[in-house]
Amino acid sequence: MPNEGSYEEALRRSSKVKADLVEGNVEKYTMLTGDRPTGRLHLGHYFGTIKERVRLQNIGVNTNIIIADYQVITDRDTTGQIQDNVYNMVMDYLACGVDPDKTMIFTHSAVPAENQLMLPFLSLVSEAEMQRNPTVKAEMEASGHALTGLLLTYPVHQACDILFCKGNIVPVGRDQLPHIEVTNKIARTFNNRYSKKNPIFPMVTGLINDTPLVPGLDGRKMSKSYGNAISISMTEAETAKLIKKSKTDSERNITFDPENRPEVSALLTTAGICSGRDPKELAEEIGMGGAGALKKIVTESVNEYFAPIRERRHQYEQDLDYVKDVLHEGNRKANEIANRTLDEVREAMGMVY
Amino acid sequence: MPNEGSYEEALRRSSKVKADLVEGNVEKYTMLTGDRPTGRLHLGHYFGTIKERVRLQNIGVNTNIIIADYQVITDRDTTGQIQDNVYNMVMDYLACGVDPDKTMIFTHSAVPAENQLMLPFLSLVSEAEMQRNPTVKAEMEASGHALTGLLLTYPVHQACDILFCKGNIVPVGRDQLPHIEVTNKIARTFNNRYSKKNPIFPMVTGLINDTPLVPGLDGRKMSKSYGNAISISMTEAETAKLIKKSKTDSERNITFDPENRPEVSALLTTAGICSGRDPKELAEEIGMGGAGALKKIVTESVNEYFAPIRERRHQYEQDLDYVKDVLHEGNRKANEIANRTLDEVREAMGMVY
Repeated sequence: MPNEGSYEEALRRSSKVKADLVEGNVEKYTMLTGDRPTGRLHLGHYFGTIKERVRLQNIGVNTNIIIADYQVITDRDTTGQIQDNVYNMVMDYLACGVDPDKTMIFTHSAVPAENQLMLPFLSLVSEAEMQRNPTVKAEMEASGHALTGLLLTYPVHQACDILFCKGNIVPVGRDQLPHIEVTNKIARTFNNRYSKKNPIFPMVTGLINDTPLVPGLDGRKMSKSYGNAISISMTEAETAKLIKKSKTDSERNITFDPENRPEVSALLTTAGICSGRDPKELAEEIGMGGAGALKKIVTESVNEYFAPIRERRHQYEQDLDYVKDVLHEGNRKANEIANRTLDEVREAMGMVY
Repeated sequence: MPNEGSYEEALRRSSKVKADLVEGNVEKYTMLTGDRPTGRLHLGHYFGTIKERVRLQNIGVNTNIIIADYQVITDRDTTGQIQDNVYNMVMDYLACGVDPDKTMIFTHSAVPAENQLMLPFLSLVSEAEMQRNPTVKAEMEASGHALTGLLLTYPVHQACDILFCKGNIVPVGRDQLPHIEVTNKIARTFNNRYSKKNPIFPMVTGLINDTPLVPGLDGRKMSKSYGNAISISMTEAETAKLIKKSKTDSERNITFDPENRPEVSALLTTAGICSGRDPKELAEEIGMGGAGALKKIVTESVNEYFAPIRERRHQYEQDLDYVKDVLHEGNRKANEIANRTLDEVREAMGMVY
C-alpha cells in the first residue's frame, strides 16, 4: 500500500518519464493500457486516456491496448454482451485515432501464453500482499459482490498483461498505483530468483494522469449507470437529448462554481474541454442566457468536436469484417510476443524438457 | 470443508465408482492424477498410487498423468533440479508399467490453454472459499513458508488439471477431498452460468485410496527428507545399504507390533508388501533370528520385487531421447485437448471475436 511518501516518489518517477517522452526519444518505452469491455467508451475515457494514448502512439512509443475481457467477470456472474462490447470497443479506438499498424489491440482471453504467466507470478506474491491491496478492497465494496478469486488476484493478471509484452509505462490513476507496485515486485523478484544475469522483465513506471477529470453531466463521476455519460458512439441527436434532459439548478445566471453549482459547472467543463475554451469565460458569455443557452453551447461543442470521430466510427460500423481483422491481427501478434516471453520464462526457470 | 457427513458421502461415491470400474465397462471414465517433481518416486508412491494407475490403464480407463512442475514453487523459492526431476519421473513411470500409448504423460508448464482456465475458474470461487480449504492451510504450515498466491489458489489449478481433459475420476487421499469439492463447485457453477444446455464439465469422483500406507523404514511417514524411503531408482546395493543402517530396537525376538515396535514392524510391512506375505507370519519365521535376519529378508524381497522394474528403468536411463519423445508426445496431445476445451469455454462465455 503506497503511503504518502511512496506516492510522492511515484509522482516524481512519473514526471521524469513524461519529460523524457518526447519525439525522437521514445524507442525505450513500451506502453500497455486497456479497458474492461462492459459498455461503450464515453467522453471521460476519451479525454482521460484515449487521447493521450493516441498522442503517445503518434510520437512513436510502442503502444499496446488490451481489451480485458476476463476482467468483466471479476465482480459479476455473467459476461453479458461481451462480443458486441468488444467489437464496439475496437470501433471506438479506431474512430478516436488508434492506428492498428502502430498499436497492438488484443483481447485478454485470446492469449494463453500470457495467461500462463499467472502461475509463476502467483508464486512471487504472498496472500497477505494480495489481501492488503486497497484498490481491490475498494472495488469489491463498490461492486457489492463477494470477493472472487479473480478479483483478489487481478493485480497479478495486470502484471501478466504488462510484463508479457515487456511494458515499462502504464497510464494510471492514483488508485491504480498499488497494482504497479505489485507488478514491480513480481518483475524484481522474478529477475532476482530466476534471471539475475539477464533480467527478463523491466521495471514499470505508472504515468500518473494529471488531466482534470471530466465530470458527468450532473456533476457526479461520469458513469454509464448514472445516465450522465455521453458516449463517443452516440448520434448528434442522442447527445442533444441527453444534454437537454440533464438537471441544472434554479438560478438563471450562469456562473462557473463547481463547489456550489456542480451540474451547471459540469456542463461548462464539458463545453470547455470540447471547445478548448475556459469554462469561466463561457459562463460570462452565457450569463443570463440561462440553462437553455448553456445546453445549446454544450451540445454544439460536443457534437462539433466528435463529428469527425463519429463519422469515422460510422464507417467502421459498416465494416465489421475490418474490425475483426484488426482484432485478429492484434491477437496474432500478442500470441507471438507472449509465446516468446513464456519461452524465456520457462528457460529461466529450467522448465525446458 | 468436508464434515464427517460429506466424508461418508465421498466414501460412498468412491466405492460405487470403484465397483463400476471393471474391464469392459470403463469407457465412461477419464482419470487424471499426477505428481510434484521434487525428487525420485519411492515405494510409498509405487504401492500407494502408481500400481493402481497402471491397473486402471490396463483395464482400459482413459488415464492421464500430469507432472505438476508449477506446484514445485507453491511453497519454495526455487525450481531446483526441475529438468532432471521431470526426466527421472518419466523414467520411473515407464519402468513401473505406465504405457505412453495408453496414458498421456505431460508437464503442467507445457500447456498454456490449460493454464488459461485459471482465469474463468477463479471467477467461480470466492476468496472465502479458498481461505477455508483445510489442506491448503496444513500444507502452508508444514512448509514453513509464507502462504503464496500460488498455494492459496492451487485447488483452482487442480481443477484446471482435472477439467481441461474432462477427468471424472481422481485417486485421492482423504486430505485431498476438499480439492475435489472445489473442482466440483467450479464445474457445477460454470455449467450453470455458461453452458446449461450442454454442460461442458463433468462431475468428479475422488477415488479414496484404501491401500494401507507403506511406512518409512523407521516407522515414520515415508519421506525422502527423513532418509527412510527406498526409491524405485536405487540400485540393489543402495537398497541394501539403506535397509542395513535403518534403526531397529533392542529386542532380539522379531514380532509384528506396529504400536510398540514401529521400526521393526515397518520393516516387516515392507517385506510383506513386496513378497505378498503376511508380516505376522514373516515375524514368526524370523523369530530369534533378530534384526540381521529381518533386514536380509526385507532387502531380498524389495530387490526381488523391483528387479524387473529397475531393469527397465536402467534401459530408459540409457535412452533419454526416448524419454523426451514420450513427454513431447504427451505435451502435444495435452495441448490439443486443452485447446479444444478452451475453445468450448470461450464459446460458452461468448468470448468469440
